[in-house]
Amino acid sequence: MIDYIEPKVLKGFRDFLPNAEIIRRSLTEKIENTFRSFGFVPIDTPAMEYAEILLGKGGGETEKQIYRFKDNGDRDVALRFDLTVPFARFTALHRNELSFPFKRYHIGKVWRGENTQRGRYREFTQCDFDIIGSDSPAADFEIILLIRSALLNLGLDITIHVNHRGLFNKFLSHIGQIDNSAEILRTVDKLSKIGEDETKRILCGLTGESNAVKILEFIGAKGTFNQVIDRITELSGGHSDESQMLISLNQYMIDACGCENPFVIDPSITRGLDYYTGVVFETFLNELPDIGSICSGGRYDNLAGLYSKDKNSISGVGSSIGLDRLLSALEHLGKLPAANSCSAAIICADIKKSGQYQALAQKLRAEGVPCEVFLEPAADKQLVKQFVLAEKKGMRFVIIPGENPLTDKLTLRDLTERQNTEVSIREIISIVNKQ
Amino acid sequence: MIDYIEPKVLKGFRDFLPNAEIIRRSLTEKIENTFRSFGFVPIDTPAMEYAEILLGKGGGETEKQIYRFKDNGDRDVALRFDLTVPFARFTALHRNELSFPFKRYHIGKVWRGENTQRGRYREFTQCDFDIIGSDSPAADFEIILLIRSALLNLGLDITIHVNHRGLFNKFLSHIGQIDNSAEILRTVDKLSKIGEDETKRILCGLTGESNAVKILEFIGAKGTFNQVIDRITELSGGHSDESQMLISLNQYMIDACGCENPFVIDPSITRGLDYYTGVVFETFLNELPDIGSICSGGRYDNLAGLYSKDKNSISGVGSSIGLDRLLSALEHLGKLPAANSCSAAIICADIKKSGQYQALAQKLRAEGVPCEVFLEPAADKQLVKQFVLAEKKGMRFVIIPGENPLTDKLTLRDLTERQNTEVSIREIISIVNKQ
Repeated sequence: MIDYIEPKVLKGFRDFLPNAEIIRRSLTEKIENTFRSFGFVPIDTPAMEYAEILLGKGGGETEKQIYRFKDNGDRDVALRFDLTVPFARFTALHRNELSFPFKRYHIGKVWRGENTQRGRYREFTQCDFDIIGSDSPAADFEIILLIRSALLNLGLDITIHVNHRGLFNKFLSHIGQIDNSAEILRTVDKLSKIGEDETKRILCGLTGESNAVKILEFIGAKGTFNQVIDRITELSGGHSDESQMLISLNQYMIDACGCENPFVIDPSITRGLDYYTGVVFETFLNELPDIGSICSGGRYDNLAGLYSKDKNSISGVGSSIGLDRLLSALEHLGKLPAANSCSAAIICADIKKSGQYQALAQKLRAEGVPCEVFLEPAADKQLVKQFVLAEKKGMRFVIIPGENPLTDKLTLRDLTERQNTEVSIREIISIVNKQ
Repeated sequence: MIDYIEPKVLKGFRDFLPNAEIIRRSLTEKIENTFRSFGFVPIDTPAMEYAEILLGKGGGETEKQIYRFKDNGDRDVALRFDLTVPFARFTALHRNELSFPFKRYHIGKVWRGENTQRGRYREFTQCDFDIIGSDSPAADFEIILLIRSALLNLGLDITIHVNHRGLFNKFLSHIGQIDNSAEILRTVDKLSKIGEDETKRILCGLTGESNAVKILEFIGAKGTFNQVIDRITELSGGHSDESQMLISLNQYMIDACGCENPFVIDPSITRGLDYYTGVVFETFLNELPDIGSICSGGRYDNLAGLYSKDKNSISGVGSSIGLDRLLSALEHLGKLPAANSCSAAIICADIKKSGQYQALAQKLRAEGVPCEVFLEPAADKQLVKQFVLAEKKGMRFVIIPGENPLTDKLTLRDLTERQNTEVSIREIISIVNKQ
C-alpha cells in the first residue's frame, strides 16, 4: 500500500502560485485586448496531434525535442511544440469555413524537451498573431503596428527592427551569390555571437573577399531610414518592389503613429533559416536590449501547403510574443502589472451571521467591488488575527460588521493607515474603488 | 520527400474556430469574474507530471484512461486527467507559501483516453474551485453560494441539490449497516439508471428487507427543507452535528440570498464512491435537468495526505464546473453569450492611405471601440466586396473614409439597415458603443 509520494514537479515545468498567475493573466488579458481592438480573433487547437502532422518534413531540433509517444490506441501522437504548425494544419482543414484575409491570434502552452540548463522551460506559453490570405503591404504594416500597440499598452519602451528578406536575396543575386544564400544566412545570423572578424573569415571562404566585404557592408548599413534604404537599394542593384515595400511601410507607420522613427531599418535582421520570404522583424526593449527580441516574425509564403491538395497557396505575415521572456523582462524592469486581487474582506465576528456577511459582500460585488468573507473567528475571538490574514493576502481594507451587518453602520479598517472609520456601504464602495 | 500530409485531428480532440473560441473565453471570463469577486485566486500547474504522482494509489478507470509515456529522459510521465490530483500535490509542495484558508480556482485542460462513442472528449476543460484549510460550515456555505452566483451571473435558472455524506453514514450505523456502506452507496448511486425495483432487490440481498425499505425511505425523503431534515434526522437516530450542519447551511443561504428555497435538500445525492466525507452537492439546470449535474462537489478530508509527511491534514470543500457540458447546455437553451467581436471596420479605398486608416482606427480603439482596418481595395475598386466581407465577419458597421481620412467627415454604413450617414469620429464612437 502506497502511503507517501514525494510532491515534485518535472524539471523545466512550473507551478504558478496565485500572485504569479494573477499577473500572467493580467498580462495576457492586456495583450488580448489590443488584439481584439484590431479585430483579431482567437482560435484554439488541441495540445496533442498526430506526430506526422507536427513533425511535417521533419529533421533538426524539433525531432529531438518533441514529446512523442504511442497513445492507448497505438496512434503515433505528440504534444505541439509551437503554434505555427498547428495553425498551418488548422488553416488547411478549415479553409472553407474562414473568411480571408483571416486575422487570428492564439495564446497557448507548447512543450519542448529542451536543455533546461540554458534557463529554458519545457512547458511555456506562446502568443502568436497572424494575418493570412493577404499579400497587401498593409498587412505587414498592420502586424508591425499591432506589435507596437500591444507593447506600448504594457507601458514598454521598445524599438522594432525591420528588414526585407527578399531584398537581401536580391542583393545576393546581384553579387552572384544567391546559390550560397543558405550558408551566408547561417553565417550572418551568428554575427553577434561569433564577431565581425570570424564572420568575415567564413564569408571570405564562401564568397571571396570582395563579396564578403559587400555582404558585411549590406548588413552593417546604418543611419536614418533614408540613408539605409538608399544604401541597400543601391547595393542590391537599384530600386525594386522590395525596397519600395520598405519605403511604403515606413510611410504607413509615420502616418499611423505620428512620430518620425516608428521603427528602425536593420539589414542585419535575417531570422536565420526560417521560412520567411518577405519583411522580417524583431523587437527589443530599450531598457533591456540584451535579453534579445521579445517579439519576432515576418512574411511567409504558402503556410498550409504541406497539408493542402488545393494548389492556391495561402501566404501571410505573423509574429509571436515570448510571454515568459516578456514576464521576466517586466519583472526585471519593475513594470509587472499589479496583481489586482481583492482588496477588502469582511471580518467574521460570529459564525452564525455568515449568511448576512455574504449578503453584505454581495452588495459590494454587485457594485464591482470584489470582497472576500472570512470564514470563522479566531479561537480567542481576537480580530487582529483576521487583520493579519488580510494583510498576508495583500488586502488594504477589512470591514468589521456590527451586530446587524446589513443595517448597522460598518467599521472600515484601513490596514495600511491602521485607522478605523464608521461608514455606510455606499462609502465603502467609493473608498475601495478610489484606491 | 513528403509533399502532402492529410490535415486531421485526433478523435476526441477539437479545433475551436473564432466564434466558438470567443464564446468559450467570454464564458470562462464571466465565471472567473465571479470567482475573483469572492476573493478566490487562480493557480496553474503543469499539463505533464510524474505518472506516479498522477496515479496516486492507482487502480480503476484512471489507469486505463491516462495518457502515460516515457519522456526523452526516460522518465515515467503522464498528462493530468483532472485538476484535483495536481492540486493535492501543489498543496503539499507549497504548503508553507500559502495562507489558509486558501480559496483558489483553476481553469485548465485535462486529458483522458475515454471512449468517444459516449459523446465524450479526450481533451476538455475543467473549472475547479475549492476552499482548503477550513472546517468552518461557512466554507461549505460559501462554495454553494459561489456556485449559485456564478451560474446566476450566466443567466441560468438552476437548482442546487445538497446532502450530507456523514449523515447518511450516521443513518447506516444506526441501522447496523455501516460495514456494507461501500456496496450500498454503489447501489444507491445507480438508482436513476436501474430503477427503484432493481435497487430494492439488490439492497434486500445486501441488508435484508426491512433495512432496504429504510434505505429507500431515507434517500427518497421529499418535501420542504424542514420536512426532509426532520425525517432523515429521525431515521439516522436523532439530532447530530451533521443534521445541524445542514440546518445552519439552509439558514446561511436564506440570509445571503433573501429567498426561501435557495437549495433543495436531497438525500439521494451521494456522489458515488468519491472521496467526499461531508456535505455533497449537484447542480441542475431547471430547463434542461436531463443533461445531469453541471456543477458538483463536496467536502473532503486530508486533501494532500498522500504527498505530505506533515501529519496535520488539510481538509476542504470544493466543486467543479464542467465547461463543455455547460457550453452545450447554453447552446441548446439559446443562452450562449454573444460572440462580442469587433463590430466596425474601416474600408480600404486607397492602399496608400493605410497609415491614415490605422491612425483613424487608433482613435476609435483609444475610446474602447474595437475597429478592424481592411487591407486592400477589391481589384475592381467596388466597395461592396468589402461590405460583404464585413458582414461575413459579423460586423454591423463599416466606415468609409474620405479623401483625407483624419479630417474629412466620414461615412458610416449600417450594414443591417443598409443606410449611410455622414458622421464625425465622436458620433461613430457613440453609435457603435450604443449598439
